[in-house]
Amino acid sequence: MSSPAIAFAHKSQERFLEELKALLRIPSVSTLPEHKADVRRAAEVLALDLRCIGMEHVEIIDTPGHPLVYADWLHAEGKPTCLAYGHYDVQPADPLDEWKTPPFEPSERDGNLYARGAVDDKGQMYMHLKALESLLKSSGGKLPINVRVLLEGEEEVGGEQIAKFVKENPERLKADFALVSDTEMFAPELPTLCVGLRGMIYTEIEVRGAMTDLHSGMYGGAAPNPFVALSQIIAALKDRDGRIQIPGFYDKVKSPSDDELQAWKRLPFDEEHYRKTEIGSPSLVGEPGFTALERTWARPTLDVHGMPGGFIGAGAKTVIPAKATAKVSMRLVPDMTAEDTFARYKAFVESLKPAGVTVDVRLINRGEPMVISTDNPYIDAATRAMKEIWGKDTVFIRSGGSIPIVGDFHRYLNVPSVMMGFGLPDDNLHAPNEKFHIANFYRGIDSIIRFFEEVGAA
Amino acid sequence: MSSPAIAFAHKSQERFLEELKALLRIPSVSTLPEHKADVRRAAEVLALDLRCIGMEHVEIIDTPGHPLVYADWLHAEGKPTCLAYGHYDVQPADPLDEWKTPPFEPSERDGNLYARGAVDDKGQMYMHLKALESLLKSSGGKLPINVRVLLEGEEEVGGEQIAKFVKENPERLKADFALVSDTEMFAPELPTLCVGLRGMIYTEIEVRGAMTDLHSGMYGGAAPNPFVALSQIIAALKDRDGRIQIPGFYDKVKSPSDDELQAWKRLPFDEEHYRKTEIGSPSLVGEPGFTALERTWARPTLDVHGMPGGFIGAGAKTVIPAKATAKVSMRLVPDMTAEDTFARYKAFVESLKPAGVTVDVRLINRGEPMVISTDNPYIDAATRAMKEIWGKDTVFIRSGGSIPIVGDFHRYLNVPSVMMGFGLPDDNLHAPNEKFHIANFYRGIDSIIRFFEEVGAA
Repeated sequence: MSSPAIAFAHKSQERFLEELKALLRIPSVSTLPEHKADVRRAAEVLALDLRCIGMEHVEIIDTPGHPLVYADWLHAEGKPTCLAYGHYDVQPADPLDEWKTPPFEPSERDGNLYARGAVDDKGQMYMHLKALESLLKSSGGKLPINVRVLLEGEEEVGGEQIAKFVKENPERLKADFALVSDTEMFAPELPTLCVGLRGMIYTEIEVRGAMTDLHSGMYGGAAPNPFVALSQIIAALKDRDGRIQIPGFYDKVKSPSDDELQAWKRLPFDEEHYRKTEIGSPSLVGEPGFTALERTWARPTLDVHGMPGGFIGAGAKTVIPAKATAKVSMRLVPDMTAEDTFARYKAFVESLKPAGVTVDVRLINRGEPMVISTDNPYIDAATRAMKEIWGKDTVFIRSGGSIPIVGDFHRYLNVPSVMMGFGLPDDNLHAPNEKFHIANFYRGIDSIIRFFEEVGAA
Repeated sequence: MSSPAIAFAHKSQERFLEELKALLRIPSVSTLPEHKADVRRAAEVLALDLRCIGMEHVEIIDTPGHPLVYADWLHAEGKPTCLAYGHYDVQPADPLDEWKTPPFEPSERDGNLYARGAVDDKGQMYMHLKALESLLKSSGGKLPINVRVLLEGEEEVGGEQIAKFVKENPERLKADFALVSDTEMFAPELPTLCVGLRGMIYTEIEVRGAMTDLHSGMYGGAAPNPFVALSQIIAALKDRDGRIQIPGFYDKVKSPSDDELQAWKRLPFDEEHYRKTEIGSPSLVGEPGFTALERTWARPTLDVHGMPGGFIGAGAKTVIPAKATAKVSMRLVPDMTAEDTFARYKAFVESLKPAGVTVDVRLINRGEPMVISTDNPYIDAATRAMKEIWGKDTVFIRSGGSIPIVGDFHRYLNVPSVMMGFGLPDDNLHAPNEKFHIANFYRGIDSIIRFFEEVGAA
């Protein structure tokens, strides 16, 4: 490991962390309109950073949504081209009162950096930039391979604009493989590549009863209650065991191969430990007959995220609300498709409509499920690089999460994605007290440097 | 109708309305802690008003909650004593964006005064004060009967303090009857006395799953979803026809007498017109085999007011919330009791708990149901007064709403309540665009003046 780039990275660690903190201070919450300017500010900071480290053709690409950031360095003649992807938008930070330190004031505790976006995905995306900086600055401005960087600002709201851009610009994004660092390690110190992702449809069900909010004393007993109606619909979507009741929902579900299932059995995983340390509920739930890993990686699911409407303040307000909404998403697995699943779901929800109300079912965003073959030279190079940095063989896992762009890279650019992530299972993604283990930030940079060097040396 | 008090009231109408508007500008929302000072401010304005019009022993009575306001005038020797009750607190104004004019900036349109509290109950309570003023100012400071005024500031949150005060001070509140103007007329121009009220229990069900909010991609399929669990519980509380499934819930329900049911049939009421103009839903709901009036006046009901928790912003957040809450109330009818009903409900909800979550059921506030005999001289005097002012015979109705204090007056003071209200069915109580028909405000004052004169002349 005598790489000058690694040496550069090591001596720059403190500065890299400070720069990441500056990025985390920008509340680039893509789903909230009041943060639109913050999302753009994050794009501008990244464009500046890319220019400073020596990348070329740096551009903020405006879209009808949040902007994309593009940069490249294409002078490694005859060498492969990497498309390095990341996203600089973050999830909303609420509930704010459950954060131990403010979500947009990064704070170090016990070797971790706490902030919204610390690991998802600002911290992981920033490893790419700092690996590129280390390579460029330690070699007189050269990279061992060609690199295109493409960053988006709306992954957390469905990534519509990048999907459109990728679809419409295959020549401009021509590459041999993509590098995506938006996943996690299976366990601390266990180098991991993710080779499967669930897809998603995110929907809203809106139930309307009376034309206006009504007094529940005056009208209770005659006026329809939209929350009762909505609860009846939601309760009918799953049975008590957690099996989803939408007709045909499971028809297209493909089981993982026996080899893959066997490999999962060898992973260091204890359901009771997982329940206690990661979930903390009285028991796990889900479809009978499947392990927790199968249920989260290889089975489709349905969750309710919130039910806006009516009175949610402290104390008592005796209102029959005119409407109630539920935010409902489903995770999909191969070979389900977003379109077919949404159509089945919508028809089923409409069929469940109780008397006295109207029901509207809306698709908010979607992403297709994806499984990636491990049989390619970039996956090989990645496992070699990680062995060197971590001293261990890489495990191949799937993720229950969704990164729709990985499907688009495959579909429109015909490139495989190397999903090399350095998050940890207890990083509180999308939750209060999100963190990134600082040692993983540093070793992630090292791993990416070595990965680029391995690909360039092949 | 040669009453000098009526003449005084007529020439003072414009000023009375302006004074009411000033009272309505105070956002005395009792359920919201941030309005605590406003609730007190309303009490202070009313105390000042009572002093100005010539009432005696005016006092703001501090309590651990919001204050009471007391005043009396007790110099009509040998005449009956009236306990005039009203409340100066109001419901929250949300959803704010559905108000055509701001809730705390009273606005006149089409002969109505729009504001939160216009009719419930500031406007109706204020009729008492202005009737007393008219009587006092037109007679050299005398009233035809003895009057005690008792105003509270937490009717909308359960009225705990006034209940305690009434229970502990029967001598201080000694009276022959109570006057309560917090109900409505059955139809425009139809003088109405309310002789029955539903009781209420207002509750919260809190469901907890994981120890923290979780990413629905990572954990969906293994982590319990509290909104799904809560929906399953709520869906099981009612069948599809609206019949409440809590075991024993209907056991104590007493049917109205045949006479009362016959009288209801003679009321000018058309269910289809009611559905269209007051409710506006595709159809009415509720227990089969009962009319809409029976369902809202004489049958118990269950409503959900809101389901706080999780993500309620715009767009998509893929979170499995750690907890979800439902605000659920039930209206009770004779001879149900709040205590027995809550115990049955709590046990049933706990029995419905799905796997993987914990459930906590809390009682927020309560009030007992009440039916009042029409066989007393004060009801007679009220019907005579209203015949004179409105030119029509009074109809006796019940209300689906709850005014717990009426039960306390009966229980602790042994006085019947005359519930003489002048609201209209489309006044939007507890909803956006609450209003009071201004002509009813004026004729209500006249009716109360004549009522006091009739009681004094008997």
